[in-house]
Amino acid sequence: MKISDLGEFSLIDRIRRKAFRSGDVLVGIGDDAAVLKVRGQSKRLLWTVDHVVEGIHFEKGEDWKRVGRKALARSLSDIAAMGGVPKHALVSLGLPRGMAVKKIDLFYEGFLKLAREFKVSLVGGDVTHSPKDFFSSVAVLGEVSRDRCILRKGARRRDALFVTGSLGGSLLGKHLRFRPRLREGAWLACEGIAAAMIDVSDGFLSDLGHILEESHVGASLDLRKIPISQAARIMAGRDGKTPLRHALEDGEDYELLFSSREKDFSWMKAFKKKFGIPVTCVGHVIHQPLKIFAHDEKNNTFEIKAKGFRHF
Amino acid sequence: MKISDLGEFSLIDRIRRKAFRSGDVLVGIGDDAAVLKVRGQSKRLLWTVDHVVEGIHFEKGEDWKRVGRKALARSLSDIAAMGGVPKHALVSLGLPRGMAVKKIDLFYEGFLKLAREFKVSLVGGDVTHSPKDFFSSVAVLGEVSRDRCILRKGARRRDALFVTGSLGGSLLGKHLRFRPRLREGAWLACEGIAAAMIDVSDGFLSDLGHILEESHVGASLDLRKIPISQAARIMAGRDGKTPLRHALEDGEDYELLFSSREKDFSWMKAFKKKFGIPVTCVGHVIHQPLKIFAHDEKNNTFEIKAKGFRHF
Repeated sequence: MKISDLGEFSLIDRIRRKAFRSGDVLVGIGDDAAVLKVRGQSKRLLWTVDHVVEGIHFEKGEDWKRVGRKALARSLSDIAAMGGVPKHALVSLGLPRGMAVKKIDLFYEGFLKLAREFKVSLVGGDVTHSPKDFFSSVAVLGEVSRDRCILRKGARRRDALFVTGSLGGSLLGKHLRFRPRLREGAWLACEGIAAAMIDVSDGFLSDLGHILEESHVGASLDLRKIPISQAARIMAGRDGKTPLRHALEDGEDYELLFSSREKDFSWMKAFKKKFGIPVTCVGHVIHQPLKIFAHDEKNNTFEIKAKGFRHF
Repeated sequence: MKISDLGEFSLIDRIRRKAFRSGDVLVGIGDDAAVLKVRGQSKRLLWTVDHVVEGIHFEKGEDWKRVGRKALARSLSDIAAMGGVPKHALVSLGLPRGMAVKKIDLFYEGFLKLAREFKVSLVGGDVTHSPKDFFSSVAVLGEVSRDRCILRKGARRRDALFVTGSLGGSLLGKHLRFRPRLREGAWLACEGIAAAMIDVSDGFLSDLGHILEESHVGASLDLRKIPISQAARIMAGRDGKTPLRHALEDGEDYELLFSSREKDFSWMKAFKKKFGIPVTCVGHVIHQPLKIFAHDEKNNTFEIKAKGFRHF
């Protein structure tokens, strides 16, 4: 069997079942970041890693400052989805033999500028030769208070479902420019608003699927409420898919998708004022595990499948 | 300028000068692992990452169990060189699209077997598509007591220089089979024997060079004492280089090279008995920064340059 037949998520499940886990691992494989206990500390460590590969996460000829920025931003987005604060980063690079030093300098310029913005220390890494294309892998260590760490598994029936920003068409540029939702994620965790949270990297439906799976619940979505980005409309004009479909299925939006038990929605106004970005209620959590029911503009109800970007 | 002109170590220096570092980073770029302070804790966190790339760190057609084992062992060796205990690992993989799942299963079998042996929890990772060859990047988090963390920069004039095991010809098999010197490293740290330490990954002379550079000292080597492996002799028979040169310059031995201030060498007997491997005094530390003087069997003294495996 090839990986393309098995799929990325089944592969991760296979590994998860076999992995050894000591008692200080509070959350292992299967969330945005691992959560580790430090003896005698109420803070938890958050730990995550993300790749950026030439030809997969950016096109040849891309501005290397943006590539470096994205390499860090992807991992920071994972920390944001836990409600955490990033602290340190390790970068490992695979470099084609003839690569110009100027490109590496630009990569680090973009990386370090974002690192400074969020007070993340670059503390080490590894450099190796890559037989073909450039790749980077950035590990980030962060922290979060014990009672403010938001997992994928926190969603319960009747929670409302929210998403920040707008969705779809990230390939037109947002995937390189996005600002990790760290301040937003930490605020949603501190204010006790988010119950389960994930960053939208594989695609809205796919990432919603991860929350549903970990929480053993389902979702009811109001498709009229999905915040569709301008980029999704532009892409739809080019490829004939609907803008809604782009919003639901495109990867790399790096917005926060979360469930909330809060009955009073007045925090939404405070959020918009504080962060200057929209937050939208797009549905609610239902009892049936892994089911997603959607309601469209004609008030039809139908079941949809969790779909999104898959590597294989 | 190409990376091949600049070199790996100059590249790392460039990055090191530009990196932001917060107060809790005790050791950043430039040692085997980063050393991080955790508030209110006497233990330090150790953090490192290492690549394994197809065609660079193993040949096509290699047993995937060994590849998985090596992917973890390389990072564990970095923790050993700090005198630390490894705790958690993150694996990120770049997989060619058509790769057989069986290979990945074998990779994890080798990885997890070694992880269990050293009680290392696999807590997460990232899987992506690789345009050409397989690559993995393994980050390991470990810990060490504040007063037992051994850096590269601890060497002082008149320290004796030691190396564990024997050196050279690792490509004949040891690079896949080696056992990270974790128990040995922790013992040398706990017993107060090692003052500066590194694992021999780039090559003995190159890694000695790292210790000298960080400690601002030089070395005097007795070439008759260098422990030459059987594999170094076999390779010398094939390629015409001397066995000594293989021992001094070959990479990937993953032995421990350390300096010691201990005047009484009786610990060497205890070491050999406890671990069943040799430990050899190969010279001592001298005052002149970065100079390496060598004495050969004819009692000639000459200066040699730090050399070893370089990726570019």
